[in-house]
Amino acid sequence: MQELKKLNTSLNEEILRMDRLFDQLFPICRSITGPGLRETLEILSEYIPLEHFSLASGTQAFDWKIPQEWIIRNAILKGPDGEVIADFMEHNLHVINYSEPIDNELELEELQHHLFSIPSLPEAIPYVTSYYKKRWGFCIPHKKREELKPGKYHALIDSEFVDGGINFSHAVLPGKSDKEILISSYVCHPSLANNELSGPISSTFLYERLAEKPRRFTYRFVFVPETIGSISYLYKFGDDLRQKLHAGLVLTCLGGNESLSYKKSRRGNSPTDLMWEHLVQYKEIHGDTRSFTPVNGSDERQYCSPGFNLPVGQMSRTVYATYPGYHNSLDTKEFMTIESLHESVNELEKLIEALEWDGYYVNTSPYGEVKLDKHGLYPDINAPGKTGLFSSNDLNDQRVQLSRILTILNYSDGQHTLREIANQCECSILQIIPIMELLLSKSIVTGPFEDRQEL
Amino acid sequence: MQELKKLNTSLNEEILRMDRLFDQLFPICRSITGPGLRETLEILSEYIPLEHFSLASGTQAFDWKIPQEWIIRNAILKGPDGEVIADFMEHNLHVINYSEPIDNELELEELQHHLFSIPSLPEAIPYVTSYYKKRWGFCIPHKKREELKPGKYHALIDSEFVDGGINFSHAVLPGKSDKEILISSYVCHPSLANNELSGPISSTFLYERLAEKPRRFTYRFVFVPETIGSISYLYKFGDDLRQKLHAGLVLTCLGGNESLSYKKSRRGNSPTDLMWEHLVQYKEIHGDTRSFTPVNGSDERQYCSPGFNLPVGQMSRTVYATYPGYHNSLDTKEFMTIESLHESVNELEKLIEALEWDGYYVNTSPYGEVKLDKHGLYPDINAPGKTGLFSSNDLNDQRVQLSRILTILNYSDGQHTLREIANQCECSILQIIPIMELLLSKSIVTGPFEDRQEL
Amino acid sequence: MQELKKLNTSLNEEILRMDRLFDQLFPICRSITGPGLRETLEILSEYIPLEHFSLASGTQAFDWKIPQEWIIRNAILKGPDGEVIADFMEHNLHVINYSEPIDNELELEELQHHLFSIPSLPEAIPYVTSYYKKRWGFCIPHKKREELKPGKYHALIDSEFVDGGINFSHAVLPGKSDKEILISSYVCHPSLANNELSGPISSTFLYERLAEKPRRFTYRFVFVPETIGSISYLYKFGDDLRQKLHAGLVLTCLGGNESLSYKKSRRGNSPTDLMWEHLVQYKEIHGDTRSFTPVNGSDERQYCSPGFNLPVGQMSRTVYATYPGYHNSLDTKEFMTIESLHESVNELEKLIEALEWDGYYVNTSPYGEVKLDKHGLYPDINAPGKTGLFSSNDLNDQRVQLSRILTILNYSDGQHTLREIANQCECSILQIIPIMELLLSKSIVTGPFEDRQEL
Repeated sequence: MQELKKLNTSLNEEILRMDRLFDQLFPICRSITGPGLRETLEILSEYIPLEHFSLASGTQAFDWKIPQEWIIRNAILKGPDGEVIADFMEHNLHVINYSEPIDNELELEELQHHLFSIPSLPEAIPYVTSYYKKRWGFCIPHKKREELKPGKYHALIDSEFVDGGINFSHAVLPGKSDKEILISSYVCHPSLANNELSGPISSTFLYERLAEKPRRFTYRFVFVPETIGSISYLYKFGDDLRQKLHAGLVLTCLGGNESLSYKKSRRGNSPTDLMWEHLVQYKEIHGDTRSFTPVNGSDERQYCSPGFNLPVGQMSRTVYATYPGYHNSLDTKEFMTIESLHESVNELEKLIEALEWDGYYVNTSPYGEVKLDKHGLYPDINAPGKTGLFSSNDLNDQRVQLSRILTILNYSDGQHTLREIANQCECSILQIIPIMELLLSKSIVTGPFEDRQEL
Repeated sequence: MQELKKLNTSLNEEILRMDRLFDQLFPICRSITGPGLRETLEILSEYIPLEHFSLASGTQAFDWKIPQEWIIRNAILKGPDGEVIADFMEHNLHVINYSEPIDNELELEELQHHLFSIPSLPEAIPYVTSYYKKRWGFCIPHKKREELKPGKYHALIDSEFVDGGINFSHAVLPGKSDKEILISSYVCHPSLANNELSGPISSTFLYERLAEKPRRFTYRFVFVPETIGSISYLYKFGDDLRQKLHAGLVLTCLGGNESLSYKKSRRGNSPTDLMWEHLVQYKEIHGDTRSFTPVNGSDERQYCSPGFNLPVGQMSRTVYATYPGYHNSLDTKEFMTIESLHESVNELEKLIEALEWDGYYVNTSPYGEVKLDKHGLYPDINAPGKTGLFSSNDLNDQRVQLSRILTILNYSDGQHTLREIANQCECSILQIIPIMELLLSKSIVTGPFEDRQEL
Repeated sequence: MQELKKLNTSLNEEILRMDRLFDQLFPICRSITGPGLRETLEILSEYIPLEHFSLASGTQAFDWKIPQEWIIRNAILKGPDGEVIADFMEHNLHVINYSEPIDNELELEELQHHLFSIPSLPEAIPYVTSYYKKRWGFCIPHKKREELKPGKYHALIDSEFVDGGINFSHAVLPGKSDKEILISSYVCHPSLANNELSGPISSTFLYERLAEKPRRFTYRFVFVPETIGSISYLYKFGDDLRQKLHAGLVLTCLGGNESLSYKKSRRGNSPTDLMWEHLVQYKEIHGDTRSFTPVNGSDERQYCSPGFNLPVGQMSRTVYATYPGYHNSLDTKEFMTIESLHESVNELEKLIEALEWDGYYVNTSPYGEVKLDKHGLYPDINAPGKTGLFSSNDLNDQRVQLSRILTILNYSDGQHTLREIANQCECSILQIIPIMELLLSKSIVTGPFEDRQEL
């Protein structure tokens, strides 16, 4: 009871700490390069031990060239009477991300070419970017746009492009095996909640939990600007990932009210792809499954590009482009909720627990059945039902456990994974972990092995 | 007509001989070791040429140790007034199989801990064993148990444990090939019919039938005590089986009114697994199919343990644990019926006939079609329907046979088994045996081969 | 508009030329050997550059022996009053193909053994052959047969068997690759339209069309007498085909009102088998699919004999043996129609276009995504929907094309065929050819390759 209370307290503390991290990160004007990106990575460093990397502007990374850094100091749009129409200091979505500098007066008609709004969401400030083509512009609520009156407007954007580079970071949690599980999220959108901070915050607190447990696999937590950042990461660490990666997940849009939604890796049969479907089948996790597609998504598009084809899927909750607040100022903490993030971390931990136990196992007495009564695992009398008065013989009534033991031992032949064995038992892998702990402790089986074993 | 009469007579004789063997074997008090087991194997030797083997008590066979022999001479339970409650001489199920000796007076309350009965079958004497834990006890009808009155009871069990060994036997019928088909049944239950004698009796008479025919495969008929006996057999002959076994069947519970029921091997695609499903599909045999499971069953659990994984399935009719008389005194000849056993032998013979013919065949003229009219197998005129008056041209009307010949020749490429070719013909393998005999006699095809052949 | 008119004119001209070829070929009395066969091949030579081959009478070709040539000069059956019952000069179906000579008077009763007719089609003259057994006979409408009166009939067949050989021809259209596509049709039936001339006429005009285009594959157009001719062709060129054949089609019965019907090759997964099903799935061609069978059909029975097992299917429209005019005088140009043949050529050309483009492709920048905006293939701004006034940014609205480009690039990994990639795009291969032309022109992908490529 006290244990439970302690656990609840620590969970509540975790939610409070997630909330604090959110509040630290939300106001920052991030982009794919520049000071906001660096500030974000530094704040994350206060929670987990990040290593920082960069590629200089102008570097050719595969088919892409690292752009100059974008420095934004101020952006303000004033109306004919000097009234403020949009102010970067008030909301950093008001300026097109990567806007070139401007300080000019212009008529409303001309200004319209530089304004963005969403007619169907008249209160929302849209999020607009133009990374690779020089442009300038302001984003405002459509309602406000419709009220603009003719006249001279003054557009001021105090931005600058400078040589610098792109920044990205990772933290590696070593395990018994060199084989790695990748957790990747992105840190390049300004003040957006579900479609920005849900990923790195979940990732950070998942790291904290795994750090406290023994680990079979090594875990690599990666934080990058989306697309150009994962391409840069692959440019630097792609060969490494190709050799070591056992499984991987891109985390994005993990807030909101939906149940989880998993997008499979391009391979379609990666350890995570198979385990996800197993856990959903046995109702350990509720959620739906999406096929891989290169047409939309997040950094799994890069990890699963044909030259890498890594076993990386993507986990979301309220999926990008399916909710009104996507890419505009309605994507707030209130919409996302810290509680949803916390639940996401719980479910990710469950998936990882299952991956940790999966693998090939070997029955150490594979010739004929194991003599289970020697180990106290088999009834020592064969009598009808419960009619015997030797009712202390509890195992007589433990048919489910006994059936599972017999099934596990028969298929622990170095050729079936524990997930497949659980399927034979018609239950989830999580349900047979206690039996595996028992059988391992008695040296009746050995494992898990990553590769098939000959008996 | 006379042939048919002769055949019927010989079938009737076979049923009479099966009945006689049953009556010889039923009264014997068998166990997994000891005199009853040996007596059973000696009686079977009168029918088929068995070789006998044993492993000494104390031998470690894989994870199991061969127990001491159990000698049972007498067991009688008397009531307060000296009346007989249970008498081993009257029915050998009255004593727990492998009971330790006892000669003691005790109160009813204490005695209850040593009594077994089945409330739902108040007339039945249950069959109880305690091979690996020392115990003593009596099995009685529940009806009788409820009438027991308080007082002093006298329990006498005159049994003994002695060093000796475990006995098992086999008979090998050589064929043209070293490849073997295993037929295994068990001989360790006392007076039970369906769940004991149905197996060895079917096996014995199947042997007799196969002995009279030319054989492609070598047949190995094995008689063992269940579990410890098949483990002992594998301990001695496992490597041999691993090298030679083409297919195998454990025979158990082959009596009763049901149609056959086949439990597939662990491989799920053994020659017998595939042939059974083929014969059922084309209604040559009626029956149902069970998946492999290590959770219950008979000696296929040992043959299919992961270290061996032999291609051994199990054939039953009225399956263990699904009928009221299972493991009690209701499992009698009247329940089982000799006629059912006889029908089982017929159907097993049919399955074996199919396995004998299955394999890869080679068309000796595989380039272009065979010129079938040279062999009298193709019409020598191409004319519409039956309008030609050359109506002696019978082949015009033998479209079914001609279609099958063309199909057989096209797929006799050394890559398709005869079963697969029969599937192409949309008929059972048994239905095309006459055509194969014709084609083989004309050297248009050769075979069967056990492995794929290159043309 | 003028282009279209020109195209229509050329199509009309093509139909007229097909009609002319039909009229040249129809009256000839073809057989599996002899002058009619040679005359047919010579007429086809006026359209396409055939090479001629022969095997001498008596040659053993696999299991078959080349027969003597059959020369037929005249055949006339006269009634008791000298009236003409059947006259070869009037219709060459009146005489059994390969009739031996006769010049005899005989009673009606005896004559009946030499008459063939179809009671259910009383107006039709049946087509009857007896190639490998010496016979003589006349084929007449059943209506006429029923009117025959008793008396002496005079049967005259002026035929002859002479040593000579079997003739067959091919025309090879070289392509960039040595890999070949075979188009085979037969030229051995006398005056029959759908079940004779539809094949060689379609083949001839398909040749003409392919000759005018650049070709990836080499095309081999084969014209043979059915069965013995394709066996002879395989005897001479079988090894060649085994090495070079990528895909193949036997053309038969391509006239009539039905939609196309494709019989798969024996392999069941040849390039044509897979492409046919793909094009039918995406409604590029309407038609049905038949499984391979060696029981009936045309020369695919020889190409797909087990010793060759070539990737050859069969294309038909109104399939042999399913229409009343099959193998009798009702199989006329009016039944077949030249327009149907023309449509068959159009659809065959479409199938070949698809095969030409299919194969493995390689993305030249497979690490991370291709930077598509460099090539003008990606929007240079990321803004909500159509609200931006930069509406010249057409690519924003070309989501279908962009999705297909992303999908093609992701799966152009040297491991997926273009047909499989089209399936990923959920459209037909023909629909993505324009995109492939674009990507190839920009060197973003290379291909097609016939074999899998490592990146």
